[in-house]
Amino acid sequence: MSLLINPRDLNFLLYDLLEVESFCDWSAFGEHDRATFEAVIDAAYRLAEDGFAGHAARLDANEPTFDGERVHIIPEVAEALAAYIDSGFMGTAFPAEYGGLQMPYTVSQAIASLFTAANIGTAGYPFLTTAAANLLRVVGSEAQKQRYMVPMIEGRFFGTMCLSEPQAGSSLGDIRTRAAPQDDGSYRIVGNKMWISAGEHELSENIVHMVLARIDGASAGTRGISLFVVPKVRVNEDGSLGPGNDIRLAGLNHKMGYRGTVNTVLNFGDNGACEGFLVGEPGRGLAGMFHMMNEARIAVGMGASVLGYSGYLHSLAYARERPQGRPPGQADPESRPVPIIEHADVRRMLLTQKAYVEGALSLCLYCATLVDRLEHGPDVDDRRRLRDLLDILTPIAKAWPSEYGLKANDLGIQVLGGYGYTREYPLERLYRDNRLNPIHEGTNGIQAIDLLGRKVTMNQGRALQVLLREIRGTADRAAADTRIEDHARALGAAVDTVEQVTEALREAADEPARYLANASLYLDLLGRVVIAWMWLRQVQAAQRLDQTTEADFVAGKRQACQFFFRRELPAIEPLAALLIEHDDSALAMQARWF
Amino acid sequence: MSLLINPRDLNFLLYDLLEVESFCDWSAFGEHDRATFEAVIDAAYRLAEDGFAGHAARLDANEPTFDGERVHIIPEVAEALAAYIDSGFMGTAFPAEYGGLQMPYTVSQAIASLFTAANIGTAGYPFLTTAAANLLRVVGSEAQKQRYMVPMIEGRFFGTMCLSEPQAGSSLGDIRTRAAPQDDGSYRIVGNKMWISAGEHELSENIVHMVLARIDGASAGTRGISLFVVPKVRVNEDGSLGPGNDIRLAGLNHKMGYRGTVNTVLNFGDNGACEGFLVGEPGRGLAGMFHMMNEARIAVGMGASVLGYSGYLHSLAYARERPQGRPPGQADPESRPVPIIEHADVRRMLLTQKAYVEGALSLCLYCATLVDRLEHGPDVDDRRRLRDLLDILTPIAKAWPSEYGLKANDLGIQVLGGYGYTREYPLERLYRDNRLNPIHEGTNGIQAIDLLGRKVTMNQGRALQVLLREIRGTADRAAADTRIEDHARALGAAVDTVEQVTEALREAADEPARYLANASLYLDLLGRVVIAWMWLRQVQAAQRLDQTTEADFVAGKRQACQFFFRRELPAIEPLAALLIEHDDSALAMQARWF
Repeated sequence: MSLLINPRDLNFLLYDLLEVESFCDWSAFGEHDRATFEAVIDAAYRLAEDGFAGHAARLDANEPTFDGERVHIIPEVAEALAAYIDSGFMGTAFPAEYGGLQMPYTVSQAIASLFTAANIGTAGYPFLTTAAANLLRVVGSEAQKQRYMVPMIEGRFFGTMCLSEPQAGSSLGDIRTRAAPQDDGSYRIVGNKMWISAGEHELSENIVHMVLARIDGASAGTRGISLFVVPKVRVNEDGSLGPGNDIRLAGLNHKMGYRGTVNTVLNFGDNGACEGFLVGEPGRGLAGMFHMMNEARIAVGMGASVLGYSGYLHSLAYARERPQGRPPGQADPESRPVPIIEHADVRRMLLTQKAYVEGALSLCLYCATLVDRLEHGPDVDDRRRLRDLLDILTPIAKAWPSEYGLKANDLGIQVLGGYGYTREYPLERLYRDNRLNPIHEGTNGIQAIDLLGRKVTMNQGRALQVLLREIRGTADRAAADTRIEDHARALGAAVDTVEQVTEALREAADEPARYLANASLYLDLLGRVVIAWMWLRQVQAAQRLDQTTEADFVAGKRQACQFFFRRELPAIEPLAALLIEHDDSALAMQARWF
Repeated sequence: MSLLINPRDLNFLLYDLLEVESFCDWSAFGEHDRATFEAVIDAAYRLAEDGFAGHAARLDANEPTFDGERVHIIPEVAEALAAYIDSGFMGTAFPAEYGGLQMPYTVSQAIASLFTAANIGTAGYPFLTTAAANLLRVVGSEAQKQRYMVPMIEGRFFGTMCLSEPQAGSSLGDIRTRAAPQDDGSYRIVGNKMWISAGEHELSENIVHMVLARIDGASAGTRGISLFVVPKVRVNEDGSLGPGNDIRLAGLNHKMGYRGTVNTVLNFGDNGACEGFLVGEPGRGLAGMFHMMNEARIAVGMGASVLGYSGYLHSLAYARERPQGRPPGQADPESRPVPIIEHADVRRMLLTQKAYVEGALSLCLYCATLVDRLEHGPDVDDRRRLRDLLDILTPIAKAWPSEYGLKANDLGIQVLGGYGYTREYPLERLYRDNRLNPIHEGTNGIQAIDLLGRKVTMNQGRALQVLLREIRGTADRAAADTRIEDHARALGAAVDTVEQVTEALREAADEPARYLANASLYLDLLGRVVIAWMWLRQVQAAQRLDQTTEADFVAGKRQACQFFFRRELPAIEPLAALLIEHDDSALAMQARWF
């Protein structure tokens, strides 16, 4: 069986839970049917397993180096990416008119997740390219699309996202990179960018940097920020390559994980000759970026889910094979050791992983379907509801999987014991890789503030009401099914708890520091409720499957759901108590007391 | 300020909380006073900071290598260890008659923890030596002590513990290494040992392996296991070195962390010429080993606590210095960014770390005082109580710090954001190092079974009763103090909960699988209660300090205690509910359902 994502489960999530097949009825995806989705996903499984997974450990152990002139990357990366590009994976979700496969975002995310699970270090290059190209798709001019986006879809150019600076990580309003307008309509870019993944390499003909900068004279803060496309090599009007641009690799960052994706510090315009081109309107750079933010954050959650998922499958395979110890009460030392999956505590660790990663993945894929429905769905009147759901779920889809996917990897290591701690098995690498996800694309602390400070309050709390109505709807329907009525009741009570907590918080709405003090607890609370909802929905979908041929699969879903409802959902009660009483244990702590 | 352990806090824990100074009244430590303890601890701070911390990152990045002939280790390790040996740290807790400093175990653990925090890779070598020497101290003959232990205390010989084998990690009863008696009273050893830290190197004149093996004809299981001393180089009667022994380095294990301590696979007797010597009685090998188990497990908990502690201090230092973002409600982008310690969520992450690591360290040091009191304390009538406390607290002192110390490191990374994820800062290394602690010296799953299956049941549950009586005593005394009466009440209620849970579990005592199914939950529950107890005791001790000059220190202890009681202790309620209802969510999960 695949050690990336259980194919039966991915199939179940896409078609049985999320009914992605029905997207083929929409005009955007009219060229597709379930068979073409399955064929592309199958091809992704094969390439991920045959072309990506094999060199993941070697790439991790031999991270890119910079000799002062060039960046060196082990050759397997270029080989894998050539095959990836040849198969058209760079453009799975892009419009056919630009050379893409024009598949639903949901399907493209499922595909991406297989490459993530196999080898995030290698997959990072095309993922950044897709992100840069997608930004141009949404905010670029037609000429910019032709000049930069199409070559990225073709895999000739790769891309980057240049947001952070050394002094401005989470606080983009403080970036200092400047853009001076030139007579020819271009801009001279000067500044330093930090944490730029895939910022320099020789894997592609060109690198297209999407750069946030301030046009001279722009106001301070986020409203003064514009977006620029800044190519490593200038591109002539006919698409041919011109002279190099003034961009210098100042150094590499060396990370705990994600080691295969070269991470750089870039200096733009050290010699005053860095040419950039405005994308969209001046001062609208962050707005353009934020337009993509939901997708970027869902993608992080997806990545975190599947790094956890692959770790789960590796530890499951090990637990089935490894004999050690005997059942409690078996005192005969001559008896044969049993596979460790027979031990209750190992089963607990495996089931916890299953509950986390299958729950997290279902949430991220669900959010991806919201993106598709919003952009291409036929029901125009439903868009406000979909937008509300996507807005309020995005910080949860980013943060919850990145926290609990990592916990899953932690448990995966523990199942293997000492072996899990060695680099002979992929568990420790997955764990190191996954540790990035609570940090990038907005730390989970930022997500918590986004959720409670913005998403819960905007439009008089409409988005939260929409979400809770959805969840209550699921609970109400499940209440009529005796097999899951207990869970239905618990989920309904959990929605009540969310309402009480949110109401209690509202009392402090005019004291921002107090209102937001426990935002992380609120995020964890609502995340648990949302994942419980996803689990109940999964069980409902599983119960519609053939209960004979799929008996084990269905039983596994039921048991994982029960596990989540019994072991993870009840933790919302202590969280709710803290939130309701505006617990100030952390807020009241003074810096000098530490 | 030190970034290893806050010196004021270590001082507070040793003298104000645990009253270690009073040990100098006992005959064993009559040569010492508080000043000598402080002088040795000061010297340890200096050497740990000046001689160990500096090369920790370099050693981590340049782990030992094996060229087929020799193991290569960066030279800074030998230099640091020479200074360590010169200062007498190898023998801090050993009797003066064997060349040791004869200090309390508690003080020796405080000293060790500084070297752990500075550089566990380098510190691993002397720690294993101390462990091997200590085993000989307890179960070796006088001749063996002179021949092997004294040179270890002198730092001329290093040591190892050879327990695990590739097929037998947690299940020592299944080890296969054989020992064939020879006419001269020695044994021929044949077998393979796995995960042997410091198993081969050239840092010392000799390596003394303490090896578990079965004498030919011994019974299966743990009762057939004997202990042998097997030197790398034979030692003549006069102490001079003889010819090499038949021990071959079969390979190195490459770990996620602890990279500096070479970890080996050793083959004993490939050529039938490996000479070993029985230590203690035949068939009593594990008994001898288990005699040391409490100390070994406390040492693991201590190590986990201080890896977490050092990470906490590093992230605290960063948070005080790093400007980023503005307080909630401050919308002016021209305003200056504030140090991130001003953000409520950063304070939460720092205070969580403080609550975990200072709580964990206090528990481990408290357990160390139990070891001292048991071995050297004057109150002979009190030994049964001390032994009960030590027995029941040991699995908690091993598991709780190793789980929550790691969580502290996780939060430390998060405080630094992207920087915390790079190898430029020590956070990610501390996190990787600390991930071993839930695994070795018995996984935390094994600790849970030890706690619930053995420690809670033995002697009709006497040890638990003793512990709960101690905790209730603290709660009762605290109830009279209005400043902490709330916590006192909560702690008393928590003891009631432990009693109810234990009583409910007892109903399943004759069904071992069911009784032990949720042992890990029980461990977490009792661990939270014990750490809450430690926190209340810390606040009581802090309130006896000068409330003016120490106002900030005391306020920090109070706030961390409050934080633990509000945020961590209440989680016992959902755990108790699961335990009381014998929740079988994990136990009922069938292997084929995964």
